[in-house]
Amino acid sequence: MYDLESRFDAVLFDLGNTLVAQADPGVPIDELTVTWLPGAEAALDALHGRVPLAIVSNTTTLTAADIARLLGPMADRFATIVATAELGEHKPSPVPVRVALERLGVRPERALLVGDNDSDRAAALAAGVHFAWSGPDLHERITAQLLHAEALERALDGAFPHDPAMADAARTRLDGLAKPAGSLGRLEDAVCRLAVIERTPTPMVDPAAVAVFVADHGIAADDSVTPWPQVVTAIMRETIAGGRAAVSVLAREAQVYVDVTDVGTLPGVPSTVRDARIADGTADLRSGQAMTRLQALQALEVGAATAERLIAGGTRTLAVGEVGMGNTTAAAALIAALCDAPAATVTGRGAGIDDATLARKTVIVAEAVAALPDGADVIEVLARVGGLEIAAMAGCIIGAASLGIPVILDGVITQAAALVAVALEPRTAPFLIAAHSSAEPGSQIALQHLGLRALLDLSLRLGEGTGAALAIPLLRAACAATRDMATIAELLA
Amino acid sequence: MYDLESRFDAVLFDLGNTLVAQADPGVPIDELTVTWLPGAEAALDALHGRVPLAIVSNTTTLTAADIARLLGPMADRFATIVATAELGEHKPSPVPVRVALERLGVRPERALLVGDNDSDRAAALAAGVHFAWSGPDLHERITAQLLHAEALERALDGAFPHDPAMADAARTRLDGLAKPAGSLGRLEDAVCRLAVIERTPTPMVDPAAVAVFVADHGIAADDSVTPWPQVVTAIMRETIAGGRAAVSVLAREAQVYVDVTDVGTLPGVPSTVRDARIADGTADLRSGQAMTRLQALQALEVGAATAERLIAGGTRTLAVGEVGMGNTTAAAALIAALCDAPAATVTGRGAGIDDATLARKTVIVAEAVAALPDGADVIEVLARVGGLEIAAMAGCIIGAASLGIPVILDGVITQAAALVAVALEPRTAPFLIAAHSSAEPGSQIALQHLGLRALLDLSLRLGEGTGAALAIPLLRAACAATRDMATIAELLA
Repeated sequence: MYDLESRFDAVLFDLGNTLVAQADPGVPIDELTVTWLPGAEAALDALHGRVPLAIVSNTTTLTAADIARLLGPMADRFATIVATAELGEHKPSPVPVRVALERLGVRPERALLVGDNDSDRAAALAAGVHFAWSGPDLHERITAQLLHAEALERALDGAFPHDPAMADAARTRLDGLAKPAGSLGRLEDAVCRLAVIERTPTPMVDPAAVAVFVADHGIAADDSVTPWPQVVTAIMRETIAGGRAAVSVLAREAQVYVDVTDVGTLPGVPSTVRDARIADGTADLRSGQAMTRLQALQALEVGAATAERLIAGGTRTLAVGEVGMGNTTAAAALIAALCDAPAATVTGRGAGIDDATLARKTVIVAEAVAALPDGADVIEVLARVGGLEIAAMAGCIIGAASLGIPVILDGVITQAAALVAVALEPRTAPFLIAAHSSAEPGSQIALQHLGLRALLDLSLRLGEGTGAALAIPLLRAACAATRDMATIAELLA
Repeated sequence: MYDLESRFDAVLFDLGNTLVAQADPGVPIDELTVTWLPGAEAALDALHGRVPLAIVSNTTTLTAADIARLLGPMADRFATIVATAELGEHKPSPVPVRVALERLGVRPERALLVGDNDSDRAAALAAGVHFAWSGPDLHERITAQLLHAEALERALDGAFPHDPAMADAARTRLDGLAKPAGSLGRLEDAVCRLAVIERTPTPMVDPAAVAVFVADHGIAADDSVTPWPQVVTAIMRETIAGGRAAVSVLAREAQVYVDVTDVGTLPGVPSTVRDARIADGTADLRSGQAMTRLQALQALEVGAATAERLIAGGTRTLAVGEVGMGNTTAAAALIAALCDAPAATVTGRGAGIDDATLARKTVIVAEAVAALPDGADVIEVLARVGGLEIAAMAGCIIGAASLGIPVILDGVITQAAALVAVALEPRTAPFLIAAHSSAEPGSQIALQHLGLRALLDLSLRLGEGTGAALAIPLLRAACAATRDMATIAELLA
């Protein structure tokens, strides 16, 4: 499953800002020096000898020979180097990529291009090769993306199919029904959003499922942020699986399938759920590194794979939910970081804490956000202050959206995951529907950032996907009205 | 059905403030004069000769002979007069009532006492006789209450059974479930309210029904307040009955039975629904009298009878809904009058009107409220500015509450009906649950007056019972969670 050779016959790299620092455009060739990006050399060492590697570099003046000379001994890692200046065709043209494939004798569907910008990606798509983003920690990133993140990669390469014109089509249909125009209020807005996603003026929600991801948080090992012991995470995992938790009951009433995945609980409680455990919970986010980048990417992969599996099984609306003692702290930190909001405005009482604990929790969130490196990308932020179940939900959200499936968000933790998902892949945004506005203060800020207004406002603060399970019957009913109501034209006929 | 003799063998009357103006306590007997209340003599004329009539008057000094002398020739209307001073027993003691019954040779369950205060009512209950309120227009009132308002009378005499202690019992159960205390937010409050009504810590909502009442409004005969022609009321009545209206579809999705009653549409559209038509719509409320008191009481009776019928058929949660072109105007006037709110704060755009129409509608509401007589009782207000379907909903609400059944309010029209119901019978209040907060501005004011907070806030403004149909699945799910979730004790065992 993690076998590079079984998937690819070659890996192509963009050069500037993918493997080496981008040179200033005006620097003369003979004054150019090479600065390898962190992890790039290690990544090339890891890959070398397994499959042929190549460079496809957009250049205006450099030749392949210039590049080889500049790279020095590391040039030996590459079977071929293509410089677009020599071809007269620059990315996003697929020609330079095709030239590299021809030289290597590799079919496009067996090749991967690693790049750092939309031109690289467009060139990959046009040439029919797979694409992976480079980034600040190239070694972990390509290890994860190439070797472990098949579903996530498919998701990021996905079509995210939707049709904005269907909003008007649905509105026209709604306006023609036997009721005053607009009188179903925000349910009509929800129908229009579903119409865009499902590419029909009469969308539907069934079959619906809620994917629940469960993991522990190092921050909950003591009572700094929550009085609940960590073992409750695994107990609730089993209670959900046993059909006796809140989400089990509410989803049953709503005819929503419940899927539970353990992304990393502490060991101890015998498990009956799908095991995708990546770690024994996260490290304490006070350490500045709740997860490694690799763990975060692995958890994203678990989520994306879960979305693929449920959708392959027939799911047409996918909600996300979670259990993880301490995860409102991680969610608050993510919301603070990704929405640039002060810790005090996003930190709440979670499952119920006293004033002293709230004050302590707020300081922990503030310090965690302050400790993030300048310019940290979203994977970095997720890894440092997030959680395994949050990463999995983000992957699940991207995965569902990439396949054209509406995603129903639950409360504040899922909203934090949605912020991660949208930061990682902005094409995810139109597929989100907010079930409810949580009692947690960060919820409003996250929703605003996501451009969403929640359907329900019931002061829920339970998680698990409960709010999503409550909202799905509303969406189902609104879709039924759109489909089944008499039209005004029909009544006047 | 309207046959007095088949129901009663005697009618007893309180005297002061029921038939004649109450004398000042200090006036010497020989200076007393009789002032008959409006309609009292006409009522006695109408009843005389059909069944024996009697007076049971609380007096401190007057004898029966004094009373007979004071009443003059009208004393002949009465088969007997009981003066409590002569018995040494005063209402609410049942003794004076029993003495009257003994003299008449009538069994308690075959007698009716008409009175004006709680002592009269308590005496009636204690003696086991039926009771009817007197009031400013006694003729119409007793005609309606005695001859036409059996279900309403049963409702007003009902037990309104509920158990406030069950709120704590439900809260204790909820707090013991496998979730943070209070984390189901306002759904937990709703469960506690249902628990009080259903007298169990684990309430349920099924089977649920929505009683839809349909009637026309004279105010909608021109386009003063709405662009919709009146015929739309009957068209929508048939569309609901045909299963193709919004409430039909939403109720079907929510597994809620839809019952439709025509309380007074304009003729023209062939009807397939239950016919309880009281008039060809109301008169224009600008005339100062949308309905007669009798019509209002008849419509209340239709509603109370509908509640009885649905509950006898198994309904355990009863929602109300309506159709009536122009009825947001009537609802606004009722809310303004019963909540003492300025017309501008309660008048809205209904199904959708322009600024000019809104301004005109606001003036109409303001003038209608200003034209109400000082000290008008709620029946008077209902008759002058309300509507047949609103009166029917009020009767239905009282009827359901009297039988211990929770009542789910829909939007602003139903909330106006609830204001009428609570004004008429304050014991109705604990049985109300607000499904949603309508887009109409009066909705907030009515809900506040009723002490309710709505579950949904979706900017709905459709009516028909649609909001109630959407809220019932939420209540059902909350009840299921209360009943089926694991308890913390169980998980720790």
